[in-house]
Amino acid sequence: MSYAAGRRPHHDGSERYVSDEAPSVGDTVTVFVRTADDDPDGPADRVHARMIRDGEPAYVQATVDRRADGATWWRADLPVVNETLRYRFLLDSSRGRDRWLNGRGTNERDVDDSADFRLSTASEPPSWAADSVAYQIFPDRFARSAAADGRELPDWAVPATWDTPVLARHPDAVRQVYGGDLDGIAERLDHLSTLGVNLIYLTPFFPARSNHRYDAAGFDHVDPLLGGDAALARLTEAAHRRGIRVIGDITLNHVGATHPWFRAATADPASVEDGFFHIDRATGSYATFAGVASLPKLDHTSAELRNRLYAGRGSVVDRYLREPFGLDGWRVDVAHSAGKHGPTDLGELVSRTTRATVEAARPDGLLLAEDQFDASAALQGPGWHGTMDYAGFTRPVWSWLVDDIGEETFWGTPGPVPDYDAGDLAAVMDTFHAVQPWRSVRHNLTLIDCHDTGRFRSFAGPDRQLVAAALTMTLPGIPMVFAGDEVGVEGDHLESGRVPFPWDRSQWDTRTYATYRELIALRRAHRALRHGGLRWLHAAGDVVLFERECLDERLLVQVSRAAHRPLPAPFTATGLAGAPDVRAGEALPGDGPAHHVWRAEA
Amino acid sequence: MSYAAGRRPHHDGSERYVSDEAPSVGDTVTVFVRTADDDPDGPADRVHARMIRDGEPAYVQATVDRRADGATWWRADLPVVNETLRYRFLLDSSRGRDRWLNGRGTNERDVDDSADFRLSTASEPPSWAADSVAYQIFPDRFARSAAADGRELPDWAVPATWDTPVLARHPDAVRQVYGGDLDGIAERLDHLSTLGVNLIYLTPFFPARSNHRYDAAGFDHVDPLLGGDAALARLTEAAHRRGIRVIGDITLNHVGATHPWFRAATADPASVEDGFFHIDRATGSYATFAGVASLPKLDHTSAELRNRLYAGRGSVVDRYLREPFGLDGWRVDVAHSAGKHGPTDLGELVSRTTRATVEAARPDGLLLAEDQFDASAALQGPGWHGTMDYAGFTRPVWSWLVDDIGEETFWGTPGPVPDYDAGDLAAVMDTFHAVQPWRSVRHNLTLIDCHDTGRFRSFAGPDRQLVAAALTMTLPGIPMVFAGDEVGVEGDHLESGRVPFPWDRSQWDTRTYATYRELIALRRAHRALRHGGLRWLHAAGDVVLFERECLDERLLVQVSRAAHRPLPAPFTATGLAGAPDVRAGEALPGDGPAHHVWRAEA
Repeated sequence: MSYAAGRRPHHDGSERYVSDEAPSVGDTVTVFVRTADDDPDGPADRVHARMIRDGEPAYVQATVDRRADGATWWRADLPVVNETLRYRFLLDSSRGRDRWLNGRGTNERDVDDSADFRLSTASEPPSWAADSVAYQIFPDRFARSAAADGRELPDWAVPATWDTPVLARHPDAVRQVYGGDLDGIAERLDHLSTLGVNLIYLTPFFPARSNHRYDAAGFDHVDPLLGGDAALARLTEAAHRRGIRVIGDITLNHVGATHPWFRAATADPASVEDGFFHIDRATGSYATFAGVASLPKLDHTSAELRNRLYAGRGSVVDRYLREPFGLDGWRVDVAHSAGKHGPTDLGELVSRTTRATVEAARPDGLLLAEDQFDASAALQGPGWHGTMDYAGFTRPVWSWLVDDIGEETFWGTPGPVPDYDAGDLAAVMDTFHAVQPWRSVRHNLTLIDCHDTGRFRSFAGPDRQLVAAALTMTLPGIPMVFAGDEVGVEGDHLESGRVPFPWDRSQWDTRTYATYRELIALRRAHRALRHGGLRWLHAAGDVVLFERECLDERLLVQVSRAAHRPLPAPFTATGLAGAPDVRAGEALPGDGPAHHVWRAEA
Repeated sequence: MSYAAGRRPHHDGSERYVSDEAPSVGDTVTVFVRTADDDPDGPADRVHARMIRDGEPAYVQATVDRRADGATWWRADLPVVNETLRYRFLLDSSRGRDRWLNGRGTNERDVDDSADFRLSTASEPPSWAADSVAYQIFPDRFARSAAADGRELPDWAVPATWDTPVLARHPDAVRQVYGGDLDGIAERLDHLSTLGVNLIYLTPFFPARSNHRYDAAGFDHVDPLLGGDAALARLTEAAHRRGIRVIGDITLNHVGATHPWFRAATADPASVEDGFFHIDRATGSYATFAGVASLPKLDHTSAELRNRLYAGRGSVVDRYLREPFGLDGWRVDVAHSAGKHGPTDLGELVSRTTRATVEAARPDGLLLAEDQFDASAALQGPGWHGTMDYAGFTRPVWSWLVDDIGEETFWGTPGPVPDYDAGDLAAVMDTFHAVQPWRSVRHNLTLIDCHDTGRFRSFAGPDRQLVAAALTMTLPGIPMVFAGDEVGVEGDHLESGRVPFPWDRSQWDTRTYATYRELIALRRAHRALRHGGLRWLHAAGDVVLFERECLDERLLVQVSRAAHRPLPAPFTATGLAGAPDVRAGEALPGDGPAHHVWRAEA
């Protein structure tokens, strides 16, 4: 599949196409559609916006706002009637068939509403979020402060020194403790600042019986093994002084079997905590996450559980967003499953309640979710601000750039990595983003790997890692770097990828590091990369060419996995980061693996 | 777009492909996929079902159930964990790319969950429903009993005799009263029995100030102009004696401005009825349906409104399902909008509550909805049993068979009727049905016209009307005939189509009538047409060829809008209703407009 180079009608939820990304009920929003005079399916002669009002379609005829550079910009004023404004466009052409334009692109046939564009009246994500580049830290493996030497390890731990090889596919893999801690992170903030990231996403810091800590043994305090409550306060304070935000990681779906709530429940069927879990008293069995007995699943029908965990003042979610902890938000683990158990589906209650608690604790708090699949149901506005975009970013990037993953399954999907060309890459990104509001798309974490995957580099090689990094930094979303990626850390399994950070710079791949720094700097320097719309101009075989445009800037980005036939420049533009200046129609570079970025002349 | 003749993988929700169409949580359901050895994209070597369990995907590897006639049937046992089981298939092929199979067909790229197959654990629709052929009657225009002569007309009425031309696009169009009544219908049940229909859908019978009565002036009694309460009881009793069911029509979205509830509300801001409407006391304005002042919109946040109208014992919905009225169910007018107003969306509450009331009043009650668009949100199981399938049936049929609708807009959509070929027809049907459970698809009313449209015949001509009728009677759904269609009544506008039924048989188009009788008899004689799955074998240009298969019968249906190149018979089959017997590979007839049906040899 390839896209006709920028000649198709386009709309997205960015500021170039929507006058107000955060309207209220009662407002009027102006939406724009860009059509091309040389559209291969016939230029549009007439455009209507179709919106839903109280369940019923209504059409608003668009007018021509302006014509420029072979494109016509149409505008329509839409009243915001309901919680979410859902709309698509109908384009008439006297030289072709009429077409619908929705999040899946154009269609000459009637379409259902599932890919309508949508604009939520829910409160906005914090303004800092979309300007962030995130850095994921697995605390045990990032940096070790001097205080770590004096700490006694818990009974379950298998001690490791910083240069002990990490175990993978081994019972002790989750028990190896390297002693990284929160003060260690605070001491290494220079590295983050130099790299250019400004948001730390910490995997869990609560006590547990594993090095990953997704089996929480309590929420009352930060794990003393990481330095305790005071260390978290010191870290957030130090980070904030540098303009770096910090979000934590909490599992709302389950706790560890050693958690006091579960102990209380199992000890006493009459306890209030008994209602926190799904325990079959006749058999003693209980619902778990993924069939793992050490991870009892929480029962969100319990109001007391909700109040303790995420509903309102004093809940765990609330408490760590306030002083002295000062977290800037949360990432919710296994968010797709939290509150769902058999015929009971409290998923919406969980996400909406958590969101309300975050906003009450701090109006500028960020709330992200883990969802490895189609996360759209909880991303329509009042739930999570964004998700980890495995489905709409990570998987298609792997499918385009990784040939073989060996023994691993591909995020649990049987069979090999799909063999995508660049057209597939773009189409799959569009597929998943078509069912989300644009606001969610640009607040999804875009990642190529994390603590839950092997290192991308180990499957794709260093050259293609940089191709993937370029996509991360130039496409919509909140780019995320898994600590170590930027210096070339490897690991062909999720456990072997949790490598202690190599502070010995002689171990760094300096080209990788330099390229990450350049890409992050580019991201942070150009508003169009952070806030602009996305228009695919070409996506086929080995190369994607796309436009990122905001109100005051228009960038052209080319990313290729291999050398390819040069594409013509769609407009005259100035090269950034070493790219040659180009005039409209001139050949763009055909090298690869490579990435190039240009800024259009004003 | 054309479909490769039956060589693509197939699954639908019918009994051939799903072991239990009405499972409960805790059950295991066996699902089947049919793949073809000569699949142009490579035969499947391995098949997995992917289902969602508590929000998380799980894969179940399918095994080969049997191989027959060049096809392989794969089976997978899926546990029913949640209220709705959502699933799709992953097909691996060593000779092609891996593919997903969901309600939209196959896709080589990752797909979002919006078109997953779905199986609801909600209670089943009544067993009689899918065996029905519905007949829509607009009471004022069907038949007039002798009692009508003695009735005094209300002040708003403009009297008309049975041969008065109907007005259209005229202020008096909705005021013309021809005097058709419920006893008139009861007297004409012979016509229905002879035609072969077994379900009457009556448009509203409550008092109003229009001949269509969608502006209800009260729900306490049947309009005396139609014969009153006793006449309804007589009609349902007479119909039931003949094995004909009767459903009524109720508007939950609004009432007429003369309704006592609205009068009470406007008279007294302190009245409980004030809460039934959205009245702005400062300006005196109120929310309406479609901006029509005589149709004040109901406010479903009022529990008292819900209790009076549709929630529980004694409500309007409840009362007419019980003796002496004995209605067999309801069709809900403007269902897509009921309960939706600005930021408030009680659509789900309305549909679920009404469903519960219907089931409590009579477990075999049917609940259908009007939705002219994408109705899927309220069709997932616990809401409406089905909808009027404008989007997935009526519109694509018009788009395939009607060239021009003149001055009319196409269901409110600006521009001309889309110019579909048969591939588009099939694809659009699939598009809308892909986002519904199969159970809803087969309980949607399939119609080519109704009281809300012009007569199909007036736009498509008599030959193509029979093509459309053939689609109605051979595709999934509850076929509906708008009274008069079967004898060739015309009318190029919704108002001019509301023609008094021509009881003078000399006015009938006898070929049309005979064909309708044949088609309805065919429908009622063949279980595969009522309960079978649907597999498109060919859909391009002027002809569709499809299979309808249930456990004990397999039919082949060809419907063409024009003469066409003959297609090869996919299997050996016996001609029904005059079609020639065919052997596999032999040419099927190439005539058209035409329809032919065969039954496969056992």
